[in-house]
Amino acid sequence: MALPPDVPCFFGVGLGPGDPDLVTLKAHRILQSADRLVHFSRKGKRGNARTLADALVASDPAREIALVYPVTTEVATDDPAYGAAITPFYEESCARLAAELDAGLRVAVLCEGDPFFYGSFMHLWRRLAPRYPTEVVPGVTGMSGCWTRAGVPITWGDDVLTVCPATLAPEALDAHFRAADAFVVMKLGRHLPKVREALKRAGLHDRAVYVERGTMPDEVVCPLADKTDNAAPYFAMILVPGQGRRL
Amino acid sequence: MALPPDVPCFFGVGLGPGDPDLVTLKAHRILQSADRLVHFSRKGKRGNARTLADALVASDPAREIALVYPVTTEVATDDPAYGAAITPFYEESCARLAAELDAGLRVAVLCEGDPFFYGSFMHLWRRLAPRYPTEVVPGVTGMSGCWTRAGVPITWGDDVLTVCPATLAPEALDAHFRAADAFVVMKLGRHLPKVREALKRAGLHDRAVYVERGTMPDEVVCPLADKTDNAAPYFAMILVPGQGRRL
Repeated sequence: MALPPDVPCFFGVGLGPGDPDLVTLKAHRILQSADRLVHFSRKGKRGNARTLADALVASDPAREIALVYPVTTEVATDDPAYGAAITPFYEESCARLAAELDAGLRVAVLCEGDPFFYGSFMHLWRRLAPRYPTEVVPGVTGMSGCWTRAGVPITWGDDVLTVCPATLAPEALDAHFRAADAFVVMKLGRHLPKVREALKRAGLHDRAVYVERGTMPDEVVCPLADKTDNAAPYFAMILVPGQGRRL
Repeated sequence: MALPPDVPCFFGVGLGPGDPDLVTLKAHRILQSADRLVHFSRKGKRGNARTLADALVASDPAREIALVYPVTTEVATDDPAYGAAITPFYEESCARLAAELDAGLRVAVLCEGDPFFYGSFMHLWRRLAPRYPTEVVPGVTGMSGCWTRAGVPITWGDDVLTVCPATLAPEALDAHFRAADAFVVMKLGRHLPKVREALKRAGLHDRAVYVERGTMPDEVVCPLADKTDNAAPYFAMILVPGQGRRL
């Protein structure tokens, strides 16, 4: 009962920054029609992407596959223990999805934001896309959701935008903060104090905006200067809007 | 007949990269329900954003407002003649929209991509948002559409992404191309030969992908090395995907 060989059966579906109303028409249709809905989650937690989709598609255990990360932020990504745990996880996840695909089913991986922008999906995609007709559906990125909710257009005129993970070393942050006009610092988590200091050294601190869970019901948006504590979730980000041409 | 003061009446609606199927549920609803649909266009041309929406909302001259740019790419943006022509255009456009808003109508500006990412809408927003309840709806960016269609995940692991307008001077392009891991060069147009040379100097040319009208029916995707001519539209872009952590 396999599909014709040119019809996509493996989907990476971008669901946007968190508000289910920011799902695209195409993603919505795939959520309704796919045979299997796959989502990543932490141990003991429901995945963010699956939770986002609750408003759009009912839970159906027979239809869903949770891929549970063996580790997330408790091991640094440059620790060999991280790769040693996570690579077999992706290998096994792909074997599991391949079994469904081999049975002729349409398998959709739910992705927060945009699948090809820092997405875990990419580690499945590079293994499965060579073997199965694949379609990736772009989504609104988390950063677009955040700068919209913060009310800060991020790039004007000829502004150059740099997107940095907060995991970078202080000297690397310093170099990037000197080089461009607008900045998004992603994956903030425990790196907030380091990023805050680098922004101060670069003279950018007063322009920086802190956003946590942008577009979600419990979002937090404030000038970074008003955030006096150092507690930030992994998915928080800091925005420094550009100051280019106003016409 | 004014709306309650806290109900948005001025909307910037991101419509995504070109495929109407990549419009969000929220944008779709606003397209259906707004009293006025506003779009930018070049003289004698239908606007790209309006054309994109054709599949979703019927033309209705009584409901639509075209804002026709007095100049576009025929005058360089750093030429004083550009500002002299374009600033009065934004002023007059805002006066026109304010008249509709003052009449109690819900006015939606249709935006390609994401409104707060290099959007012309921003020049209306900074004048009208202080005066009217405003809502901006983020959209899938053109660059997400392009890297998806090109089949190149743009950032892996801790990759740093820099987004540059192609208008930059060669030395500025050189500096940026040395500093990050992944690149998007926007607004290509007549700057293609200059960008191509800078990518060669940076050793990035062989990894670069050229995308024109990504997600649209007439899209062009090819390795930059295979593009032998120098003709590129303003909305073409070059992508250099990162090479970060594969897990």
